[in-house]
Amino acid sequence: MNRVRVVLVNTSHPGNIGGAARAMKNMGISELVLVDPERFPDPDARARASGADDVLEGARIVATLEEAISDCVLVLGTSARDRRIPWPVVDPREAAGLVLDQLDDAPEATVALVFGREDSGLTTDELQRCQYHVHIPSNPEFSSLNLAAAVQVLCYELRMLDLQRSGQPTKMKKTETTSIQNEIPATAEEMERFYVHLEQVLVEIGFHDPQKPRQLMPRLRRLYGRIRPNQVEMNILRGILTETQKAIGVQASGERRR
Amino acid sequence: MNRVRVVLVNTSHPGNIGGAARAMKNMGISELVLVDPERFPDPDARARASGADDVLEGARIVATLEEAISDCVLVLGTSARDRRIPWPVVDPREAAGLVLDQLDDAPEATVALVFGREDSGLTTDELQRCQYHVHIPSNPEFSSLNLAAAVQVLCYELRMLDLQRSGQPTKMKKTETTSIQNEIPATAEEMERFYVHLEQVLVEIGFHDPQKPRQLMPRLRRLYGRIRPNQVEMNILRGILTETQKAIGVQASGERRR
Repeated sequence: MNRVRVVLVNTSHPGNIGGAARAMKNMGISELVLVDPERFPDPDARARASGADDVLEGARIVATLEEAISDCVLVLGTSARDRRIPWPVVDPREAAGLVLDQLDDAPEATVALVFGREDSGLTTDELQRCQYHVHIPSNPEFSSLNLAAAVQVLCYELRMLDLQRSGQPTKMKKTETTSIQNEIPATAEEMERFYVHLEQVLVEIGFHDPQKPRQLMPRLRRLYGRIRPNQVEMNILRGILTETQKAIGVQASGERRR
Repeated sequence: MNRVRVVLVNTSHPGNIGGAARAMKNMGISELVLVDPERFPDPDARARASGADDVLEGARIVATLEEAISDCVLVLGTSARDRRIPWPVVDPREAAGLVLDQLDDAPEATVALVFGREDSGLTTDELQRCQYHVHIPSNPEFSSLNLAAAVQVLCYELRMLDLQRSGQPTKMKKTETTSIQNEIPATAEEMERFYVHLEQVLVEIGFHDPQKPRQLMPRLRRLYGRIRPNQVEMNILRGILTETQKAIGVQASGERRR
C-alpha cells in the first residue's frame, strides 16, 4: 500500500485535503500529491486531518497533473459525470483489483488514484491521462460525493482487498473477558438438560400443560437452538430457571412445592 | 433502501451531521435520526450537506438511542475499538448483507445503522442494544474514521450490494459520441489486413527486415491483440500507416517509392 499515491487536483477547500489525508491514513495509505491546491498548508487542513499530520506534512505539491503521475505505471481517475468519452469505467471494487494486480505484477511500480476539483471534477484532458475512470455508484439524482468521502471509499476498497488477499481479517476480533468458556457452545446434552429444566419450570409456573402442549416446546427448542448459547450463557439460563423455582417456592428442580 | 435508518448519537460537530446527510443521499438513503445532537440545526450542517438539505430537514431528533431504534428489527452499531465485550462483529460488507437480507425477509421492517460520538463512539450500554457491531477495517495505529466517512463507507456498501442484487450496474456506462462503430471490435480479417499493412510500412521505413525478423511481428501481434481495437480505432491505425507511407514517399501500399 506504500506504492499507492493519492493525487488531488486543484482542490479548493483545504478542509477536504485534511479529510482526505485522514481517510488515507485510516486505510494505511500515506503518499499524497497535491496538484496546484488553492490553499495549502492551511489550519483547516490540519483540523480535518485530525492527527494525520504526517500525511499532510509529507504531501508533495506540484504544478501539473503530469508531474504528479509521470512515474506511475497505472493511473485511475475518478469521474462522477458521464462526459460522453467512451473510456474504460470501473467501480471502486474493480479499481482496487486493478491496483493490487498491478502492484503484484510490478514490484517497483507506483499507482496513482486521481481526484478532481470539488465543483467540476477532472477536465476531459486530465481524464484522458488516466487508463481507467473510476465511478462510485452514487444516486444519479445526487451523484457528487464530497472529495474526502470519495477518497475514503477508494482507499477502503483497497484496504479490504489487500487484507483479503494477504489472508488478514477484515474485522477485529473482540477478546473475551471472562474466560475461554465464553466461546465454547453448550453441548447437545446440556441443551437437553436445559429443555427438561425449562419445561418443568413452565409447568410449575402454570404456563405449560403437557396434556395440551400447543407446540410450545418445539417452538422453544427452535428459538434456543437458533441462539446457540455458550457455556456461560447456559449457566445464566439455568440460573434463571432455578431462581424462578425458588421464587415460586420450589426448593430445587424435581422437588415438590413446600 | 427507504427502510434503512441512519442514527447518529450525541454528535458534537454539526458539520459531521451535514457530511453524513450528504453521504446518505449520495447513496440513496434518506432517513436520519439524531440522538441528542450538541448543535442542530446549524449552518455548518447545511454547508457540509452541500445540497442534501432534504435529508437534514427530514431528520428526527430524539433524546435517547432507545427512542431512535425502538421500531427497528435489526440494529447494527459501529465500533472502532476493541471493548473486550464478546459480541458478533461484522465488516461493512457483511453488514450490508445482513441489512439487505433482513429487509428482504421482512418487507415492512426498518433497520438501523447506529454511529457514535466523534471522540468516544458508542458506550458499552449503547453497543449492547445492537445485535451486531460493525468494524471498518482501519489501520490499527490510526483507526478512528471521521463520522461522515464512516457513514459513507457503510452506505456505499449497502448501495453496492443493493445494485448488485437488483441486477443494476455498479458503474455508469459512458455513451459513445461518434457512432455504434466505436463498440464493434475489428474482425480477425481486418486485423490480418492491418498486420500486412503494418509489416509493409515497417519494411519501408527500414525498421523491419523480413530476412532477420527477430520475432518482431509476433510481438506486435501480441501487443495489438491485447488492445483489441474497435472499428474506429482500426481506421485510425490504418490511417497512420497510410500517412506514414505518404510522408516517406510511397504513394499507396503496394506501390514502389517515387
